[in-house]
Amino acid sequence: MRKLRVKSSAGGYDVIVGRGAWQALRRMKAYSSTFVLTEPGLWDRWGARFSRAGVLIGTRPVLVPAGEGSKSLVWAGKVASELLERGADRRSLLIAFGGGVVGDLGGFVASTYMRGIDYVQAPTTILAQVDSSMGGKTAVNIGAMKNLVGTICAPRMVVSDPRVLASMTPRAFRSGLYEVVKHGILSGPGLFGWLEKIVPGLRATNAALLERLVLRAARVKVDVVSRDEREAALRHVLNLGHTFGHAIEEATGYRRFLHGEAVAWGLLLVTRLAELAGVLDPATGKRISRLVRAVGPVPGLAGVRAERVLELLTRDKKAIGGKVLWILPERIGKVRVTSDVPAEAVARAFQEVQSGEWNG
Amino acid sequence: MRKLRVKSSAGGYDVIVGRGAWQALRRMKAYSSTFVLTEPGLWDRWGARFSRAGVLIGTRPVLVPAGEGSKSLVWAGKVASELLERGADRRSLLIAFGGGVVGDLGGFVASTYMRGIDYVQAPTTILAQVDSSMGGKTAVNIGAMKNLVGTICAPRMVVSDPRVLASMTPRAFRSGLYEVVKHGILSGPGLFGWLEKIVPGLRATNAALLERLVLRAARVKVDVVSRDEREAALRHVLNLGHTFGHAIEEATGYRRFLHGEAVAWGLLLVTRLAELAGVLDPATGKRISRLVRAVGPVPGLAGVRAERVLELLTRDKKAIGGKVLWILPERIGKVRVTSDVPAEAVARAFQEVQSGEWNG
Repeated sequence: MRKLRVKSSAGGYDVIVGRGAWQALRRMKAYSSTFVLTEPGLWDRWGARFSRAGVLIGTRPVLVPAGEGSKSLVWAGKVASELLERGADRRSLLIAFGGGVVGDLGGFVASTYMRGIDYVQAPTTILAQVDSSMGGKTAVNIGAMKNLVGTICAPRMVVSDPRVLASMTPRAFRSGLYEVVKHGILSGPGLFGWLEKIVPGLRATNAALLERLVLRAARVKVDVVSRDEREAALRHVLNLGHTFGHAIEEATGYRRFLHGEAVAWGLLLVTRLAELAGVLDPATGKRISRLVRAVGPVPGLAGVRAERVLELLTRDKKAIGGKVLWILPERIGKVRVTSDVPAEAVARAFQEVQSGEWNG
Repeated sequence: MRKLRVKSSAGGYDVIVGRGAWQALRRMKAYSSTFVLTEPGLWDRWGARFSRAGVLIGTRPVLVPAGEGSKSLVWAGKVASELLERGADRRSLLIAFGGGVVGDLGGFVASTYMRGIDYVQAPTTILAQVDSSMGGKTAVNIGAMKNLVGTICAPRMVVSDPRVLASMTPRAFRSGLYEVVKHGILSGPGLFGWLEKIVPGLRATNAALLERLVLRAARVKVDVVSRDEREAALRHVLNLGHTFGHAIEEATGYRRFLHGEAVAWGLLLVTRLAELAGVLDPATGKRISRLVRAVGPVPGLAGVRAERVLELLTRDKKAIGGKVLWILPERIGKVRVTSDVPAEAVARAFQEVQSGEWNG
């Protein structure tokens, strides 16, 4: 079990990673009351163990349906109402026990309930453990626009136990690994090279190896958000692969791809784009492409309309005045943030990757 | 025209008060786009003048219906959607042109749209000009619970032109004056004594006098929030009269009283409570009561169930573990913040004020 420390304008917080991490909840200060936000299936399977570890015995959770639909203002309002009914006040604590949906929604509710109460992230998916649970970004979706409304509000603690990953479906597990690959590209040859070795044989049940993986990948995120909480500039790098990824998710109505799968395509696309823009050598491009594909199969891009994707790119939250801010890999461990990329290169990258003409 | 300066964790902002204040918008930095959130009737009457003053010619406003119903998550979502559709990005500016509802909703949307864009408060009611537009508290209501969900996020500027108050109904105008009385009690004999002189003859069309009044009353708020943005302790004093006020509003389903009218009753009740608790002398109690009543008539408390009000008090946002935090006037210019008030005194104060047995 290891502890990482995130620096934040609100004073910083610990990220506890490892088997037994949930027990760190016992070290928290006293609250007037504690509530757990989670999903029914997850709580059925892990609730008793989580409650025991965190000394939350008898806790009746606040439940939201599994799935992206819960990440809405409607559900934010329902959760706030339930908290009020059950007596939550300004000194109450909310623990978000779940994946990205529960974490984003829980953080949003906590940061706005009575104008802000403390909260803890207890992430239960690989994506949440290495990425979304840290940094204090909270959000809900508005219509088809993901994360349009949200806050930046640091949790009081993050507790990640990799054993819970064993209940992920293989597909969801792989989806999270694509984000780990992203962290490998951002981090440098050390993590990237290690991933090249272990990813092909990795299983969701290998808790010892996952503990190391989550720790190493989470550290990348911790380092970045500690230096740039508000996403002024540095934090942008975390969007590597996400600019295309978001557009692809939206173009397919969020039905064809899991988030990480869209990021997988986003990583391939931006790798090819970096090659076309002349900032990345093909040998490194090949390494990235090979590691992405080593994670496993992803639904194809067949039928996704290029024009729609290109149009959606300009509506990305990081776009300013319609100008897309690209994060291009330059080499393993280094990216370039630039809006100076010709539209033709973007279109060509998409065409080549979609058709399979380029595959690293 | 005068400038007050609010200190804030985000760096502080100017509050411009006076005839011509809207022109200060011209001094703002450049934004990728600017949007005005307002209500149809208000914009019909003042939109052209406001646009001219702020050089926002041709601006098509984002409209929400007049009234408390717009202060909801549903409308927050609708406004965010419209902003997205119309191309608002992270460097856009939102101007809230209206009273408390538009200001609270606009601030909430701005503080959460793409996780936060800049906004300006252009308050058009006396309540908003002396109170709610400053301090960065934003909120929406959840069901019957007012302001249950919100943020603390400082505006970039506040521009208050008292001439716009001329379109307030006499009742709404009086309602705002009760908040001014509250500021008089908090501030001290100087402002309070001046209010005793001018309030009886005050008219919504007397722009010169209103300019002084708004300036003096706004300064009270500016001083408090500059010293305590997060309402850790000091800012609590601004809730003078609001603990009872909120409970009375809720007990009557927000139908009988305007907010300021409920605060008027709240001021009378807490004045009597302070007398009963032995912290306020009856002569000062009489002065407060007389100034509240000098503002004008308020719908009566007849039929409001005491038990319901007393129960709702314990659900106040400032209540911790069911303990109500009372703000009791001790003398003009000094209040005591305490949860050490016997329940019997609270019940008795309500009974005496409701029945008219006590009227200062």
